[in-house]
Amino acid sequence: MPQINGERLLGDLRRIADFGRYQTGVHRPHLSPQDVESRRWLAERMKEAGLDPVIDGIGNVIGRSTRSGPRLLLGSHSDTQPRGGWLDGVMGVIYGLEVARALAEDPATAHLAVDVASWADEEGHWGQMMGSKSYIGRLTEEDIDKARHRDEGTKMRDALAAAGLDKTPRLQMEEGQYRGYLEAHIEQGGLLEAGGKRIGIVTAIVGIFQYRLTFSGIQNHAGTTPMPIRKDAGVAMMRLYNDVMDRFPAVAGPRSVWTVGKMMLEPNAPAIVPGKAEMVLQFRDADVAILEKFEATLQEIVAEHAARGPCTVECVTLSRTMPLVMDERFLDAIEEAAAVHAPDVHVRMPSGAGHDAQIIGLKLPAAMMFVPSIGGISHHFTENTADEDIVLGCQVFADAAAKILTGN
Amino acid sequence: MPQINGERLLGDLRRIADFGRYQTGVHRPHLSPQDVESRRWLAERMKEAGLDPVIDGIGNVIGRSTRSGPRLLLGSHSDTQPRGGWLDGVMGVIYGLEVARALAEDPATAHLAVDVASWADEEGHWGQMMGSKSYIGRLTEEDIDKARHRDEGTKMRDALAAAGLDKTPRLQMEEGQYRGYLEAHIEQGGLLEAGGKRIGIVTAIVGIFQYRLTFSGIQNHAGTTPMPIRKDAGVAMMRLYNDVMDRFPAVAGPRSVWTVGKMMLEPNAPAIVPGKAEMVLQFRDADVAILEKFEATLQEIVAEHAARGPCTVECVTLSRTMPLVMDERFLDAIEEAAAVHAPDVHVRMPSGAGHDAQIIGLKLPAAMMFVPSIGGISHHFTENTADEDIVLGCQVFADAAAKILTGN
Repeated sequence: MPQINGERLLGDLRRIADFGRYQTGVHRPHLSPQDVESRRWLAERMKEAGLDPVIDGIGNVIGRSTRSGPRLLLGSHSDTQPRGGWLDGVMGVIYGLEVARALAEDPATAHLAVDVASWADEEGHWGQMMGSKSYIGRLTEEDIDKARHRDEGTKMRDALAAAGLDKTPRLQMEEGQYRGYLEAHIEQGGLLEAGGKRIGIVTAIVGIFQYRLTFSGIQNHAGTTPMPIRKDAGVAMMRLYNDVMDRFPAVAGPRSVWTVGKMMLEPNAPAIVPGKAEMVLQFRDADVAILEKFEATLQEIVAEHAARGPCTVECVTLSRTMPLVMDERFLDAIEEAAAVHAPDVHVRMPSGAGHDAQIIGLKLPAAMMFVPSIGGISHHFTENTADEDIVLGCQVFADAAAKILTGN
Repeated sequence: MPQINGERLLGDLRRIADFGRYQTGVHRPHLSPQDVESRRWLAERMKEAGLDPVIDGIGNVIGRSTRSGPRLLLGSHSDTQPRGGWLDGVMGVIYGLEVARALAEDPATAHLAVDVASWADEEGHWGQMMGSKSYIGRLTEEDIDKARHRDEGTKMRDALAAAGLDKTPRLQMEEGQYRGYLEAHIEQGGLLEAGGKRIGIVTAIVGIFQYRLTFSGIQNHAGTTPMPIRKDAGVAMMRLYNDVMDRFPAVAGPRSVWTVGKMMLEPNAPAIVPGKAEMVLQFRDADVAILEKFEATLQEIVAEHAARGPCTVECVTLSRTMPLVMDERFLDAIEEAAAVHAPDVHVRMPSGAGHDAQIIGLKLPAAMMFVPSIGGISHHFTENTADEDIVLGCQVFADAAAKILTGN
């Protein structure tokens, strides 16, 4: 079995955290200057590892093995949330890089072929996992034409041009090219830590349904507009949000989550009755039936508020990502590797977070592996994982990859 | 009695609307480049009108009469709301300018002394009516040191330096310098229009209490953080706002208004549980007792939510501007002038909007006059007033000023 190099692994992780470093974390949204730089650096490291790297027309970095024979795809994403953590999700990309190096260094595994990918925009600044979607042929040119930065409203086409990628073709996976896909990631929750476990074997990834709710009223003066004739879009948004929080628990499953993470008022000035308000609502569950119950409840609430007025309510579906069940044989391979390197501290669990594996998994057998997040913190610059857990996880991941390729 | 020149008046109003024009309105926040330019232009026009203009250290433009004898102060503000209207409140400033010109052109009134002022930051981008407060000695250097732009967080000191005003002294009114203060403004509401009136004689200005509510929770991942352990600052804000809207009507008077015009989530990303949320709440009434009831109710609600958790709530008082009752003799003067030029289409009414008159009125007898707002719209670029109403209002305003100075 391959031996990974923990120092080399941690060194690469610390180095790539320099691109967009923010306090103890990283601010590296997809196609930001720091993100583009980091992708060039990553391609260089892949080349040093003996892979043939390409940065494609959506920003995916793919290091292709020069070996023949059965091929495994390893990867994750290297873009980050705003002011996010240093390991989410670049750890999985550097794991892939380290596994490729470790396999090549061991004569017994030097013939094994792994491609290593860093998917574009997993964090959804431009869309929803556009990089992995592009790689499996589920992203059209029109999707890219339409894509705007979720905060700045700028065109993805312009950002791709600024990154020098506008003339670059997008790579697509070929039928039968891979035996499957493996992705490692930090847990982003507190279950492993709380249970004293060090390796999470992901049985399924939750589905995520996401909606934009837009409220339109009449903008007016906050002093001269009598309460009875107001059409305050901010009040309309707050009242509907309140109903969502009151009524969702009744249809929720034990692990369901629902969130309004983004909101805006227009013009957002203290002395002006807001004429427009917008919020983004998402909910997640591993059970499609529950997701559909949430959706029906939301549509009910929207219809009630639209009928009640005085503001209009529009609900646009931004995305409906279905839950994905992982490949049982791959889960076994990870479990066997964990039994060797992390006896009794591994556990099977679902993923509450969305991951590229749920996109690639639409076309390939796929599985994921988690390492613990300290304090369960993520999507924040204080996110972290113990060095020993990072190293242990990579060794388990390397063994699992070798097992899947060699079939033992 | 002086004869105002309607064409000259409208010409000046249309010219100054070029500074920061936005669609049919104006975007000219205090100390923006467009605002600074417009103040220089205003000072030029004052000089042409025979006044001695100064732009002082806070941005007030004051055109001082060279005449001796009893002196009246006329003014309003020339800064605007974001993407606001073309008349709010520069119409009152240009009225003052036109009145000064009309008085000077009539031998019978040429000896009368009026100073004309454009007050800084009435719209509160940096503070609360800082210009008029400065002129009556109610603004300290420390207030200016502390002042930050409400949206951009930039320092007012830096903006004053950029405007070349950092070395300029602030002007202050002297004891006994004026017989009183008159301000004209658009109504910013629909009462005049609805009642078929063309002149509003303002009996009182409502008080405005304003608060910043800050909610602190824990920022985390929207997929991996179970609902029971979340500390979602956005939910905390929405729940408290909901209680405010439920409970304020019980303590409100017939003309009370309350508004949340500004809100923010941090980091404001769809897949992140907000760790921080902020909203600005204000309420207005002409009756101090009602304002105090609102404040007590708000403090109750804040205490309840803070006790309930899971997020912390902080409520900071941003301002407590008391209602102001206008000077009865001045109201009579405006009414007499209106009886001549606008018989049967004038009415006494309170002002739901705050105005510099409530600051200057702390030191001087003061009164205000309104002209109709088409559709009652204001704080929006579509705000407008019929040309003939603008001209009529200025003639009434000029007569009233002359009456107050001559005592007949």
